[in-house]
Order: sequence, then structure tokens, then C-alpha cells
Amino acid sequence: MVLDIDRERFVETMEHQAEIGANEDGGLDRLALTDADRAVRDWFEDQLEALDLDTRVDEMGNMFGRRQGATDEGAVLLGSHLDSQPNGGIYDGPLGIVAALEFVRTLEDEGIETERPVEVVNWTNEEGSRFQPAMMASEVWAGKTSVEAADETTDDEGVRFDDALERIGYRGDAPAEPHDEYDSYLELHVEQGPFLDRGGHDVGVVTGIVGLQWGEITFHGEANHTGTTPMQYRSDALVAASDVVTQIRRLPGTLGERTVATTGDISVEPGSINIIPETVRFTFDLRDPDDDVIAEGLERVRAEMEAAAEREGVEWEYEERMSAGSVDFVDRCVSAVREAAADLGHDAREMVSGAGHDATHAASVCDTAMVFAVSEGGKSHTPEEYTSWDDCHAAAETYANAALRLAGVADGGDPV
Amino acid sequence: MVLDIDRERFVETMEHQAEIGANEDGGLDRLALTDADRAVRDWFEDQLEALDLDTRVDEMGNMFGRRQGATDEGAVLLGSHLDSQPNGGIYDGPLGIVAALEFVRTLEDEGIETERPVEVVNWTNEEGSRFQPAMMASEVWAGKTSVEAADETTDDEGVRFDDALERIGYRGDAPAEPHDEYDSYLELHVEQGPFLDRGGHDVGVVTGIVGLQWGEITFHGEANHTGTTPMQYRSDALVAASDVVTQIRRLPGTLGERTVATTGDISVEPGSINIIPETVRFTFDLRDPDDDVIAEGLERVRAEMEAAAEREGVEWEYEERMSAGSVDFVDRCVSAVREAAADLGHDAREMVSGAGHDATHAASVCDTAMVFAVSEGGKSHTPEEYTSWDDCHAAAETYANAALRLAGVADGGDPV
Repeated sequence: MVLDIDRERFVETMEHQAEIGANEDGGLDRLALTDADRAVRDWFEDQLEALDLDTRVDEMGNMFGRRQGATDEGAVLLGSHLDSQPNGGIYDGPLGIVAALEFVRTLEDEGIETERPVEVVNWTNEEGSRFQPAMMASEVWAGKTSVEAADETTDDEGVRFDDALERIGYRGDAPAEPHDEYDSYLELHVEQGPFLDRGGHDVGVVTGIVGLQWGEITFHGEANHTGTTPMQYRSDALVAASDVVTQIRRLPGTLGERTVATTGDISVEPGSINIIPETVRFTFDLRDPDDDVIAEGLERVRAEMEAAAEREGVEWEYEERMSAGSVDFVDRCVSAVREAAADLGHDAREMVSGAGHDATHAASVCDTAMVFAVSEGGKSHTPEEYTSWDDCHAAAETYANAALRLAGVADGGDPV
Repeated sequence: MVLDIDRERFVETMEHQAEIGANEDGGLDRLALTDADRAVRDWFEDQLEALDLDTRVDEMGNMFGRRQGATDEGAVLLGSHLDSQPNGGIYDGPLGIVAALEFVRTLEDEGIETERPVEVVNWTNEEGSRFQPAMMASEVWAGKTSVEAADETTDDEGVRFDDALERIGYRGDAPAEPHDEYDSYLELHVEQGPFLDRGGHDVGVVTGIVGLQWGEITFHGEANHTGTTPMQYRSDALVAASDVVTQIRRLPGTLGERTVATTGDISVEPGSINIIPETVRFTFDLRDPDDDVIAEGLERVRAEMEAAAEREGVEWEYEERMSAGSVDFVDRCVSAVREAAADLGHDAREMVSGAGHDATHAASVCDTAMVFAVSEGGKSHTPEEYTSWDDCHAAAETYANAALRLAGVADGGDPV
């Protein structure tokens, strides 16, 4: 049995969700726990109810809809996130939510009873644009951090997470923890990288997620007049920072083949054209599929930081902002995706995700895998993010069939 | 004749002005055209009136007080500025204003009539912290830019210069132009650099002002996900910028002995830990006593900018923010300062100012020179700015005696 996803309804659903929080650039402004997030959650709730699913919302605002199976064995959990980055793209997480909805709709249309229950989930605050860290709500759900710790995080305006969640009416009663002995978790997401597009592939079979280290480096120098302070008497925090930024750029070439390292943000105090920078803060993002490579990379950054600080006579600080070990997905789940793609005749590429996903945390609760859809040009977190409807449909159909393999068809039917 | 400056009254006056706009860090928040600036102007006006000077305020808010001389020959103009940087020091420009007031007070005390008229001036907005460029009002006065152009500049909140000036009641009637065929301009200011302090000198004899080039460099790259975008497909605007910042740091070592070059500010868009920097803007400040060195330095920065842009595949823009040729002060004015210091037995160092001053513009109107007071540790534009009362007094007395040399003592008396 191969499930067909109704392309017209699927595209219509994608287009509908993309209207909620749409901005004039053609992108989405649907940051977690904003009015736009509430609106898309209301819409999602309607979709779950239209499918007659048992719905629940947990303390973190994670939204679930459960379709019973023939048995009470552990459910297959399917989903992604509906929140966006500021001026983000319309595919990103929503594609995974819509694909999960379409899978359940198709089961209904075809009158298929699965052996295992199937649950659809919308995770709260995957993006982490407003409240850090990203993927906070699946992290709590996986028991890696507490509801209390999450509640206390604040956005740039000082609004607490719990207040923002209450405000939009999505502070649920269900405990933010696994409701079930889940069999597996399957997530569809856009690749957000160029490999599928450049290789001409139809769909990605994700075998794991890179580990990452996020940090913030601060150099403290001495503010002084740029015109009257001779070069030899300076302690310029920005020069030290720039030295490290250029070394971070060079790091991957001397580490693993898949290493990426980036400084995404930098700020200067006092930040005046004629004052030598006193304090400079900048971010550091290092990822690799191999945790040992990350540890080695961090050591090297530390050495560069110390050398630059010594050269400029400035003080340094390193603050870890996030650390996540790499994740290897479980074979049987990866195989379900691989075989579903093969059945559909798609050219699939196996790959490690360079981005974190809620699947990172789900993988610590149950067997997990992911499907990637093509990201044209690898663009992501921008209105220019684009996946053709052909590619969206290919990924959604692969996803649905992989999910059916995991959930099983009742009455002893072979799902393949 | 050697004039003695009354140390007690001088220190008292310095301390008094330092209370106006004082903040809890021990510094001054007396930005141009704020309430604190109005308050210090009101105080200054009172001082001019107490000395029975002919006062006038021009369209730019520059405040003048004139003491008639025995003749109507060109006046000697004396002054500096009372505005401060945010959280600036208490000496900076105010020391020059107080020294000029004390000079006139001493003439009154001693019953000295000068040959030439003497004018005291407080220039508006020397600092340029709120309205750019710095030294705007002396620039207009010198005929290098128009009142209309200055009026249209706005602060960060969009408040126009003319509205701000009206608001504090210091939009005067006098044209912002030389009122007289001035004989000379003499300004006392703190050095804002470490040379006098490190050399153990009492006072600085300023022979000129370095030229400067201020610019803003912008790199336009491509925003992309830091985790999913391989290093070889990136166009990272911050890496290009950091390359140039480190080269700017190295530039002076290969140019003139007195060259200084700095990046004081940098900003990133979108500025997120997990997005490759798309647009990075940063400032560039290059100074040297030799204009040819500045031209050569600018060429080298341009070459570095192009090389970095090519390496990272980003676009670049260079926008000039200010350009000022170096100024050589006129011998007779410099000599007046040198000889005054020698008469007082001070260890004076001859030096070129690394900072711009209102004297830069005055020098295009009449013969000009400056006196520098010691800046302990070279600190400036911070509450830690410090000049001992001994050093303040040495500079003020040098200044007064140099001014008297230029103004001349009436009745044929020899001022020396």
C-alpha cells in the first residue's frame, strides 16, 4: 500500500497557514506567543477537531491531537512547529505540520485504521527568536529542563514566557511530558541548506543531527579617544574580537569535513566613531556531526581568544549559550523513510541535519527520524525561502508513507 | 609682566561648572542643546555679564562676550566649549572656558587695558554626540557650511538642530560669522592623550591639528542558516569586515610615525547567533599630521576592503563621513604660547593635536594656536578623565599670558 497525498488540498492548506502572520515581504512574522502565533494555533486546533482527534495542550503550550489505533501500543508522534523567525519563510516548520495533518486526513479518507495510535504535535517556540533557547518546549517535554526554568525566560521587552503563554490562552493543563510510551517520532522539515537542491535530489533521509556549541565571547578593553591615543597604548576590544572572528572562519577548514563555524552577531560599547571600543560581545556557533570535533574546535577558539586578548591587552570571558551533543537517529526509523522514498521512486539523499530540530529532544524519548524537503538555494529564515510544490509534495508523501510504516496498518494488512 | 591666575577662584569656578549636568558617576551629561546645556549657558551668560562684557549670541547659539581694548584693532578670541559627551569628563572643553573667564577677571582685577579687544566664546555642539558633525557651530562661523545645513541635522530621536536650539532659548540674532577682523584665536583644552603625562610635562604647546578621514564601510553578504550552509557557499559580511578591522589596526605601523587608525563601531544585520551576517556597517577613523599619509592610508584601506569583499563574495560601499585637512598653527601664536610657558618656568612639550577642536575651523579665519593641559593617563570622554588642579592652573596661566601677549597691554606697556 502506498498512500497518495491529495496535492490540491495539501497546497491549499499550506497556503492557508501562510496567510496567518503574513507580512508584506511575502514572509511570516509569527514569533512564538504573539497574536499571530495565537491565530495559527486557533486554526491548528480547528484542524485537529475537524479530524475528531483527542486534543490536549500541555503546560508549555505544546498542542497534541491523537487518533486512536487498533491497539494501545506506543503511539507514533508526528509534527513540527508553526512559529516563525522574524520575517521568516512560509515552509520551515509549517510544512511538517501540514504534512502530518494531511497524513491523518488521508487515513480518514482511505478509512485506514493504524495499529498504533498516531499523534500530531505543534511544538511551542521552536525558533527561539523571542524566548531562548530554541526548541525549549520539546526540551521540557523530553525532561531535559523544567517548566519552571522555561517560565522564567524573558523576551527582549522583559515579558516572561509563562505570562506570554497565558496571554494567548495556550497554557494547557496537561503535564509537559510524554503522555505515552511513544513508539517513535517522525518530523518533516525543510532542509534549510543547499545539499538537496545542488545535488538535484527529491527528498532527504535524515540520519542524525549535528552537535552544536553556542557561546558568547566578551572582550573588555579600554575606551579612549581615537585621535589622541597612540596605537601602542591601546587595548582595543574590537580588534581582539575581529582577530577571533577571522580565525573562526578558518577553523572548519582544519577540522572535520562537515564542520561549520560562525559569528552571527557582534556589538560594541560605547560604539562611537571616535572612541576606541571598550567592550565587545560576539556570538560563536560551531557544529559538527562528531562531538569530538566540536570539543577540539572549542579548544582552538579558546586558544585564539587567549592569544588575541594577550596581543591587545584586553580581558576575555566565554559564556556557553547552548551545548547539544550530536544525535544519531535509530535505524528502523531511518529505514522507514528510506524505504518510503524508494517506493515512491524518489531520488533520496541521506544526510545529517546541520540545524537543530525538535527531533533532537524527541530522540531522547523515543526512536526518531526526519524527512527533509528541498530548500531551493538553501535559503532559510527569509521570505526568499522556497520549496516548489512538487518538492513539498514529494517530501509530504515520503513522510506519510514512512509514518504509515511505523504506525502499521491494522487487520494484519501490510502497509507496504 | 606676568599674569597670575587666582588659583582658588579658578578651581571654584571649575567646580561650579562641573555641578551643572553632573551625573552619579562623577562625570557630566551635558549634551548639546539639552536642559543641562541650557543651564550651563545661563551660568556662562551670568559670568559674562558680571564682567560687564558686551554679549551676543549668534544663530548657531555660539555665545560671545567682548571686552573693549584701547584700540579697535582685530580682537583676540578666546574660548572653547561647555557641552560634553554622554558621561564625559568635567575638564575637556570647560577648562578652556573657565581659563578664558579667569583671564578676563584677572585683567579686571589688575586694571589692565589691552590694546586689542578680547572676546570670550562658548562654541555650540563641539562634541557632536547629539548632532553631527562635531564642531558644527564653529564650522558655520568659519563659513565652511551654512546655517541652513546645520539646522537640518537631527539627533537620534529625529529632533532638528534648530528646534533644539530654539527650545533652550539660545537661537541668537547675531549672524553666525566673524564679527570682527579677528587678530587671533587661542584655545585651551585638555590633551585627551597620554603624551604630556607620560613625558612628565607641565603643559602642551600645540603646533597644529592632525588631518582626519572618517568613513563608514558597508559589506553586503547573504543571510543564511549557520548550521546548514556549508562554509564554501557563504558570503559572510562580518568575516569580510573583521578582515578589514584587523588590517586597519596594522595600518599605522606601515605609515607615518604619528598615524592612528580605528574602527570604533560596528553593527550587524540581522544579528542573530544562528544567521550568517548579511549586512555589516563599521566606521573608520584615520588621522595623521600629514595629509599625504592620510590619502595613502585611505588607498590601502580601500585595497583591503576590495580584497576582503572578493574573498567572501560580498559587495562593499565606502561612504566618507568627514574629511579634514591637517592644520599648521601660525608661528607668532605658537610662539606666544611657548614664551608664556617659558616665562612661567613650565616644562612645555610641542605637539600636534590628535583630536579635532573648534580651533580647526577658527584657524581658517585668523591666526590660531592652542594650549594643552595634561590628561592623566590620557583618559578622555569618561568620568575618569582627570587633570590635577596644579596642571589645570599651569595650563590656565600659560594660556592667560599667551593671550595677553597677543592682545597687548595698552599705554605702550610691554606685556612680557
